[in-house]
Amino acid sequence: MPAKNALYAQSGGVTATINASTCGLIEAARRNPARIGRVYAARNGILGALDEDLVDTSVEPAAAIRALMHTPGGIFGSCRYDLPPLPQGRDHFERLAAVFRAHDIGYFFYNGGNGSAETAQQIATILPQLGQPVISIAVPKTIDNDIVGSDCSPGFGSVAKYAATSLREAMADLASMAHSSTKVFVMEVMGRYTGWIAAACGMALPAGEDGPLLLLVPEVHFNRRQFIAAVRARVEKHGWCAVAVAEGIRLRDGRRLTQAGGDGIPGHEQLGGVAPLIAAMVRSALGLKVHWSVLDYVQRAARHLASQTDLEQAYAVGRTALAYALQGKTGVMPVIKRSHDHPYRWRIAPAALAGLMNREKRLPRGFLTADGCRLTAAARRYFAPLIRGEARQPFKDGLPLHARLRLEPVPRRLQSGWRMPSRSEKQR
Amino acid sequence: MPAKNALYAQSGGVTATINASTCGLIEAARRNPARIGRVYAARNGILGALDEDLVDTSVEPAAAIRALMHTPGGIFGSCRYDLPPLPQGRDHFERLAAVFRAHDIGYFFYNGGNGSAETAQQIATILPQLGQPVISIAVPKTIDNDIVGSDCSPGFGSVAKYAATSLREAMADLASMAHSSTKVFVMEVMGRYTGWIAAACGMALPAGEDGPLLLLVPEVHFNRRQFIAAVRARVEKHGWCAVAVAEGIRLRDGRRLTQAGGDGIPGHEQLGGVAPLIAAMVRSALGLKVHWSVLDYVQRAARHLASQTDLEQAYAVGRTALAYALQGKTGVMPVIKRSHDHPYRWRIAPAALAGLMNREKRLPRGFLTADGCRLTAAARRYFAPLIRGEARQPFKDGLPLHARLRLEPVPRRLQSGWRMPSRSEKQR
Repeated sequence: MPAKNALYAQSGGVTATINASTCGLIEAARRNPARIGRVYAARNGILGALDEDLVDTSVEPAAAIRALMHTPGGIFGSCRYDLPPLPQGRDHFERLAAVFRAHDIGYFFYNGGNGSAETAQQIATILPQLGQPVISIAVPKTIDNDIVGSDCSPGFGSVAKYAATSLREAMADLASMAHSSTKVFVMEVMGRYTGWIAAACGMALPAGEDGPLLLLVPEVHFNRRQFIAAVRARVEKHGWCAVAVAEGIRLRDGRRLTQAGGDGIPGHEQLGGVAPLIAAMVRSALGLKVHWSVLDYVQRAARHLASQTDLEQAYAVGRTALAYALQGKTGVMPVIKRSHDHPYRWRIAPAALAGLMNREKRLPRGFLTADGCRLTAAARRYFAPLIRGEARQPFKDGLPLHARLRLEPVPRRLQSGWRMPSRSEKQR
Repeated sequence: MPAKNALYAQSGGVTATINASTCGLIEAARRNPARIGRVYAARNGILGALDEDLVDTSVEPAAAIRALMHTPGGIFGSCRYDLPPLPQGRDHFERLAAVFRAHDIGYFFYNGGNGSAETAQQIATILPQLGQPVISIAVPKTIDNDIVGSDCSPGFGSVAKYAATSLREAMADLASMAHSSTKVFVMEVMGRYTGWIAAACGMALPAGEDGPLLLLVPEVHFNRRQFIAAVRARVEKHGWCAVAVAEGIRLRDGRRLTQAGGDGIPGHEQLGGVAPLIAAMVRSALGLKVHWSVLDYVQRAARHLASQTDLEQAYAVGRTALAYALQGKTGVMPVIKRSHDHPYRWRIAPAALAGLMNREKRLPRGFLTADGCRLTAAARRYFAPLIRGEARQPFKDGLPLHARLRLEPVPRRLQSGWRMPSRSEKQR
């Protein structure tokens, strides 16, 4: 079988370690020149594939590819775009088939979360029907940690480590100020639908310590009265209280707090941010001085404090995706299976994309105590290995050094361009 | 001269490296047992001194003191409290004289910013008048970098390094998302009156690069129309734009944007945060998707990414404060003098506190370009050495390890307690 080219693309919200998967995949491909020709990358995810906007990674020196290991963000650009299903999406798939044919692409790798897995599955099933055989593999990545079938998601361990570290540091600050000034600190982390990151912030407190830290996650309905009572109790006992809150916490009626909280504040929903709402609530109910922080992009881009476990797993899913392709596996995703907590043991296994679709892994109820605001031992066993190890980050002149690729465009071969029929972009 | 005890206290907003000054001072004292008896520390700044709430640092093992080098926050607690001037503050000074006499305190060290320098100066001048001779020295510390007479302030270099790193990382994220999603990212940093930290964020862009980054500082009046035009131009040219904004930016009429921006939003001033206001402004004027982040405490507590230069300077001012005390200097502060930019050379020199009072070092106009939103070469020369070097941070189980002191209380010797007559606490 003659070598075929591969096409790789990045999708959805990026992470501190998605480029490590890129590195794993490209390095594995370079070790198999008899089977894999060139690895092309689409600019801006599937949009670049549709637009025939490709770059040729084979011109990048090995050192530049290696430097992806310590470079946050998505080096080729990402997108938020779902392919429309058949029959109305037929033009999209015909266009992709034409691009793949024109560039002799036999392997497609889509690096993303649940939505991207669906795209990879559509390509795996529909393109062969259109006469363009292709092996299509999803490479997992999401800070949300919500991919079903994978013990954890590459990208999550690093944001968990960064958020828990930042909170532990901020708690040292708060404890110093509390006597005569600020007594409550609220830190908002990502998590629209799941509380994985907020829960991981519980690791900021050493195990067994009854410290003044409350965790607020979307899986537990927010109850204002209980929350205020819990803050008051901790401030009375410890002198201060820290709160880690997921952006998507909800009231019993299902509305997000950012929607409900905006009731009395015109334009607030547009301002966004649940931390300032929580802070205002504490201030008005208890009359305490409150500080708050919203981490946003800073948390998921914090490669300078990436978890070594996460970096290794991100590299491994990229490398293994390529191996699966060589084995002829299609419509699969390499997922992480944990076999032991301590010492931590994990391996990569293939999961059929068809079985992962339209599902979302939520935080188990057993991860939080009955009052809903502290970590259980089970949660600590789960999180502990994921945040372990400090991945090396080279610095130059005091700032992190990131990869700079040439991003050499692949000459276009198709006569006609692609005009997006209607943008159905998801928003985050 | 028989040995006298020393009293050390921390004041004002804490930093990632204030405890390194503590370490420098205590280690120096331990090398001079013939002159310095015990080093006591007041809990919660000058409030603990008034309340005779002291701990004895001499019971701490050397390793615990050394661990202060990598521990953020103020290990003994800080405060926001200014001593009232004479004559109405006479009871305060008489009380301090009694506490100092009871514990044989001959040396006082106050680790803080401009306000704390004033307290140290009051004690240097007033206590001897009340028959309690004492050597009183201010140890500089503030992330605000606004201490007059010091080339930079311990604490600043680390927050500058952390903020510029975070922005560089977030810009890598933003650049990946911009094609089909978020095009603007706003990062809010501290700086009520000065733009030192926001300006340092300009280092996120390599020198000579005309990148899409705007800096907003309190020293330059915020002009909404010019700002929106600048964002629009950068998005058109680069596809995206990042903004670093100091919390205290002001309109031409002198009002803070957080005050003025609250006009149409009841309760907004209480919510705080200039980043969400800027984000809402860009969204409504340009219709772009915007993400925003407020770093707050996380930035000034980020010891995990402290600057080596800053750590060394923080240690040096603590050590030198003790040396000055042994030389009989009082009413002084060890400040940092820069003699060369590249290679960076600095030394510590004594500055009379009387000359530093009620002044504030603002960002020089020559640090920003004429459009007010990019760094000049002079600014880069200034910031470059301050953010250099990654100070070592030990980790355990994936999280930073901090010092745990015994904080052994010093038995009270005074019959009567101290009741604060009226709290005149500053708020931050």
